[in-house]
Amino acid sequence: MKNPFKTVALIGKYKSPEIAGSLLPLGEFLAARGLNVVVDALTAEHLPSIPFPALPLEEIGSSVNLAIVLGGDGTLLNIARMLAPSDVPLIGVNQGRLGFLTDVSLETMQQTLGAMLDGEYVTDRRLLLQTRVLRNGAEVFRSLALNEMVAHRGNISSMIEFEVRIDGEYLYTQRADGLIVSTPTGSTAYALSAGGTIVHPGLDVIELVPVCPHTLSNRPIVVSGDSVIEVLMHRSDDVRVRFDSHTWFDLHLQDVLEVTRFPSPVRLLHPQGHSYYRTLREKLLWNQPL
Amino acid sequence: MKNPFKTVALIGKYKSPEIAGSLLPLGEFLAARGLNVVVDALTAEHLPSIPFPALPLEEIGSSVNLAIVLGGDGTLLNIARMLAPSDVPLIGVNQGRLGFLTDVSLETMQQTLGAMLDGEYVTDRRLLLQTRVLRNGAEVFRSLALNEMVAHRGNISSMIEFEVRIDGEYLYTQRADGLIVSTPTGSTAYALSAGGTIVHPGLDVIELVPVCPHTLSNRPIVVSGDSVIEVLMHRSDDVRVRFDSHTWFDLHLQDVLEVTRFPSPVRLLHPQGHSYYRTLREKLLWNQPL
Amino acid sequence: MKNPFKTVALIGKYKSPEIAGSLLPLGEFLAARGLNVVVDALTAEHLPSIPFPALPLEEIGSSVNLAIVLGGDGTLLNIARMLAPSDVPLIGVNQGRLGFLTDVSLETMQQTLGAMLDGEYVTDRRLLLQTRVLRNGAEVFRSLALNEMVAHRGNISSMIEFEVRIDGEYLYTQRADGLIVSTPTGSTAYALSAGGTIVHPGLDVIELVPVCPHTLSNRPIVVSGDSVIEVLMHRSDDVRVRFDSHTWFDLHLQDVLEVTRFPSPVRLLHPQGHSYYRTLREKLLWNQPL
Amino acid sequence: MKNPFKTVALIGKYKSPEIAGSLLPLGEFLAARGLNVVVDALTAEHLPSIPFPALPLEEIGSSVNLAIVLGGDGTLLNIARMLAPSDVPLIGVNQGRLGFLTDVSLETMQQTLGAMLDGEYVTDRRLLLQTRVLRNGAEVFRSLALNEMVAHRGNISSMIEFEVRIDGEYLYTQRADGLIVSTPTGSTAYALSAGGTIVHPGLDVIELVPVCPHTLSNRPIVVSGDSVIEVLMHRSDDVRVRFDSHTWFDLHLQDVLEVTRFPSPVRLLHPQGHSYYRTLREKLLWNQPL
Repeated sequence: MKNPFKTVALIGKYKSPEIAGSLLPLGEFLAARGLNVVVDALTAEHLPSIPFPALPLEEIGSSVNLAIVLGGDGTLLNIARMLAPSDVPLIGVNQGRLGFLTDVSLETMQQTLGAMLDGEYVTDRRLLLQTRVLRNGAEVFRSLALNEMVAHRGNISSMIEFEVRIDGEYLYTQRADGLIVSTPTGSTAYALSAGGTIVHPGLDVIELVPVCPHTLSNRPIVVSGDSVIEVLMHRSDDVRVRFDSHTWFDLHLQDVLEVTRFPSPVRLLHPQGHSYYRTLREKLLWNQPL
Repeated sequence: MKNPFKTVALIGKYKSPEIAGSLLPLGEFLAARGLNVVVDALTAEHLPSIPFPALPLEEIGSSVNLAIVLGGDGTLLNIARMLAPSDVPLIGVNQGRLGFLTDVSLETMQQTLGAMLDGEYVTDRRLLLQTRVLRNGAEVFRSLALNEMVAHRGNISSMIEFEVRIDGEYLYTQRADGLIVSTPTGSTAYALSAGGTIVHPGLDVIELVPVCPHTLSNRPIVVSGDSVIEVLMHRSDDVRVRFDSHTWFDLHLQDVLEVTRFPSPVRLLHPQGHSYYRTLREKLLWNQPL
Repeated sequence: MKNPFKTVALIGKYKSPEIAGSLLPLGEFLAARGLNVVVDALTAEHLPSIPFPALPLEEIGSSVNLAIVLGGDGTLLNIARMLAPSDVPLIGVNQGRLGFLTDVSLETMQQTLGAMLDGEYVTDRRLLLQTRVLRNGAEVFRSLALNEMVAHRGNISSMIEFEVRIDGEYLYTQRADGLIVSTPTGSTAYALSAGGTIVHPGLDVIELVPVCPHTLSNRPIVVSGDSVIEVLMHRSDDVRVRFDSHTWFDLHLQDVLEVTRFPSPVRLLHPQGHSYYRTLREKLLWNQPL
Repeated sequence: MKNPFKTVALIGKYKSPEIAGSLLPLGEFLAARGLNVVVDALTAEHLPSIPFPALPLEEIGSSVNLAIVLGGDGTLLNIARMLAPSDVPLIGVNQGRLGFLTDVSLETMQQTLGAMLDGEYVTDRRLLLQTRVLRNGAEVFRSLALNEMVAHRGNISSMIEFEVRIDGEYLYTQRADGLIVSTPTGSTAYALSAGGTIVHPGLDVIELVPVCPHTLSNRPIVVSGDSVIEVLMHRSDDVRVRFDSHTWFDLHLQDVLEVTRFPSPVRLLHPQGHSYYRTLREKLLWNQPL
């Protein structure tokens, strides 16, 4: 089998010139292996002159076979969302502490990536959510999320009220600070802080987690990844919907959020021996003596 | 399409002679439709003389095309577990309040069942768990569960300590009152009281919920229905494992519980228009004004 | 003992002309008992001409021996906070459903109030919190709260980071959506939705409840009512602090919130036989069969 | 002020001969300061011959001015409960990791205790619970608890049902695995695992925490230390009540548990500079980067 990764994009944390110290040697390492290396244009802006062509992120998707992201989980989340339509696989190199998504460490980067380019990797497909905001039936906004969509009260209200339908069937009307619709990937992010359960990232399911619900018997609920989830806003025009804590949109009264699985998942590549459960233990401080 | 339900078994709540009042007319109603009716032998023992043959439950599985259970969720749970290997579909008729599993009400029983026998029903497949208890590598006990398997400290200990592996991979070591391995069906039973999430009953997943874990950052986790879950007992020989709050077995130190999905699911039949979410709202008192 | 309630103020829900139907007969009932009746000026604005003098709320405190509030818990909360410095006792008449604070029902109002004016009441003292916002050591804002003070991220941030000190001693640094400092009264309001415990309203304690904390082992904590609680804002200038979901103030980076018990408690009067626990059961839907 | 600690008892962890290595030098250190040293008889049994008189624990209470306990929190808990009626102050020396109650470390023991004997200590009074088991109105058992009383289902039942009254007033009827009645000291023990709140140990309050309650809106509740808490058992004769995970008693149907504050608190002595909040942070792994 010949190497499927002929052209590789390097993408660094946004506005972080300190990335140069690891990005340049990595580019040279890849070039020395005979690969074509391109660098994300925004990343390149903050680097000294580099011997690789710079491409805008919008063109990277159609031009490369692999994207290596240097940064934390937040950076990978943003890049993955933007590259999702092009189905480019991603590798995350963390710049410091182990991340849930960025599991190649800077120290052993060249050795680990070398092995991965030789085919020693596992592929991890992650469900993405697509949200359409409908106003009077017409789409007024659309966004993807790899972690979660959150509809949350703004600064003025003390709560929001919303109605949820799943596949056209009425689930509940809730008053709460907000509602999280989370992917399995997002189940260890904001959803976990709000009382959600952990969901294995390989599952094709979606988790709904209310934030500070007024109904005390309300609980998170896990539904099929095939579901069409509709959230209809009642009684407030001070609701902001956010995607991966990054993109946002302000809702109007009666706006409907329609959340579905995005057709193509994100593909993350991990080194052989990668263990989701080990990451979980390390990040959540399990198995520490109390 | 001709009626697939030629022979129907009627099974009543255990040791409940009061079931006669609804079971007999139901049997006559079915017989009048040209169906063969048999009655579970244990049920028949507590009834006055009846015009239908009695069969032991072990033979019912291979003899009938449908089992109608009169009782509550607890009764249906027990019958479903026992009939699971034979793949007979079940209908639950509740004797009082709406159940999660028994959603045909006594009042409208004949009308609802008539329509269902005419083909107006939806089929709902429910994952069952199979647990094997291994001692020094050999199986010493085996049981099915439609709700959950619980390994729980006995009367003497103040906690148990166990290690969990999923598909051979180490998940964690925990000290807790117990560990619940729950089906989606069981997610609204004991697992919910212990802080678990609600899981749509159609999903092919398994939920692990610790009971009073000593590690405060421990959370329930939802994994694939394909998983092989192993629970290894450390440091206690006072552990009882229970299945659907019904069957139990006392563990020894170093015993291993191996939990997997049972090959054939339970088939529940519901009337057309059945809504899982409506049942959820009614049972959990959602949408009541606070 | 002569009647201690010589002059009584009637205060209605804000901008609610429909209050007239119950306020006027109540005023006449009190006047017929020989009491002086005054009406809150803001309330009077929305009423047809009334035979009682109107007084601004600021003057009511020093002019009356009792304030009767017609409205819901929200109205009582606001009036109690404003009258707190003057130590006037309050009676809450609910306009619909039983409230935690407003436990005289409109239907039996005259009979119940008659008995209370005859001395058949119990006095319930409720701790109030006073918050000072300190910027570079100088007070820039001050507010009371009968339910809670909440410091919460605004629309832009995905979390706030803050440090808490109690009586000068360091408690923790947290990242979270927010922090609730709640009175016992507030323990059944927003603090409960955020996972707080219920605290009997007669206790002299303060409860700290984090909202969606990033540290999963974080838990609510109950401390003495004597405590000086300081919350120092780190790493965000998008924090809004709110008092009883009503008054608010936007914080700057490094602002310090100093929360203490207000010297004089609110005095609520209840009919004889009033039961806090019964209200709790009714409001939280306890003892409903599941 | 002359030294109030003329006679000091040394008490070691139960059946732990390894305690000798620290107990003997400690005794000599105290004797060299002119104090009378006695050793708990059960502790002495497991030691080589020692130059100090041995006294049964029952006599220690009335014979000494101070008890120094070498062991973990569990040991201190047991000794504190047994010495409670005699009001002897206690110092806890931990044998390994920092405890909530045992905060003098073995390494710096002599220096720390020297300063404490010179008067440099703070006194910490801890509420104890007294439980009486009443059967047909007559007391059949009685026990103290410094952490908590737990009434819990036994091995056979899947839940217990009980009714709680506080000061004669009905609180609720619950179905659950159990009910914890916890002191502030116990709020960081089993009650915390069951979802309870943390309560500052200096408060005069009692916390009720249900274990896996069937009513999802049930929450822990904190009530006054003056309360008379009655728990009446319904529908089960398979209930075990336990005190500090140590002493236990099996209940009958209709038994009543009456829980009240024990008249005299436990007195713990801490070194100057002792910080409860620091212990909390260390034990609960707060302020660890996630």
